[in-house]
Amino acid sequence: MSSSTFAMHPQLSADTFVLGDWPLCRVLRMNDRLYPWVILVPRVADVREIIDLAEADQQQLMTEIARASRTLKTLLNPDKLNAAALGNAVPQLHVHVIARYKTDPAWPRPIWGVKPPVAFGDDADAELARLRPAFAPFQ
Amino acid sequence: MSSSTFAMHPQLSADTFVLGDWPLCRVLRMNDRLYPWVILVPRVADVREIIDLAEADQQQLMTEIARASRTLKTLLNPDKLNAAALGNAVPQLHVHVIARYKTDPAWPRPIWGVKPPVAFGDDADAELARLRPAFAPFQ
Repeated sequence: MSSSTFAMHPQLSADTFVLGDWPLCRVLRMNDRLYPWVILVPRVADVREIIDLAEADQQQLMTEIARASRTLKTLLNPDKLNAAALGNAVPQLHVHVIARYKTDPAWPRPIWGVKPPVAFGDDADAELARLRPAFAPFQ
Repeated sequence: MSSSTFAMHPQLSADTFVLGDWPLCRVLRMNDRLYPWVILVPRVADVREIIDLAEADQQQLMTEIARASRTLKTLLNPDKLNAAALGNAVPQLHVHVIARYKTDPAWPRPIWGVKPPVAFGDDADAELARLRPAFAPFQ
């Protein structure tokens, strides 16, 4: 009948706030105050691996990974940036871009599985107000 | 005087075998038999973050991440591919590309820090003979 259309995996929706849409990816803020942690989700249906994307979309994904990295660096001056496409638990392709500090709770380890997420509360609006202009749609 | 030239971080050299050089990256096989685990190191001096690379090199890095991913997929038929630029411990920019199986010792977690590496022994030559043709230089 029809080809499938992009939809966010329910787990990704449950764990994040939407910052906005870039040319390829939906940009999310992970709901975990422990780390400045953004997730890029290509708005393409049925994609699990980077190599499932068309080559032009792979290149655009790198453009957006770099833009998210620069944005976090400019805004937050972290000690290190981490970028990762894992997806062992949630099969929809998504790329983590995380600002790391030598003082964060997982340093120097990767963040996954080290500490349970600490969700934002009443301050979620302030966090989103801080991030949304920096991650505003472009082009 | 002179600009610095590319050299491998000693820790990366100690932990890996060289598979070969691609247009941008040196391709390494992590010396850990627990996972099919390749590392791409851009042969550019003084680069710590993806965004320290020139834009054309960022795009070439994605091309080589995708090529390494396809190569592992074709060779090994894994359940999932993981790709990550972390570098919290070793500051030289390097990208992990890992073939994951639902039966591997870390699944579904990311592999880092789960199990101590299990180095190859006499079978290192056989492993390299298997991988080097698949990861042969191109262009």
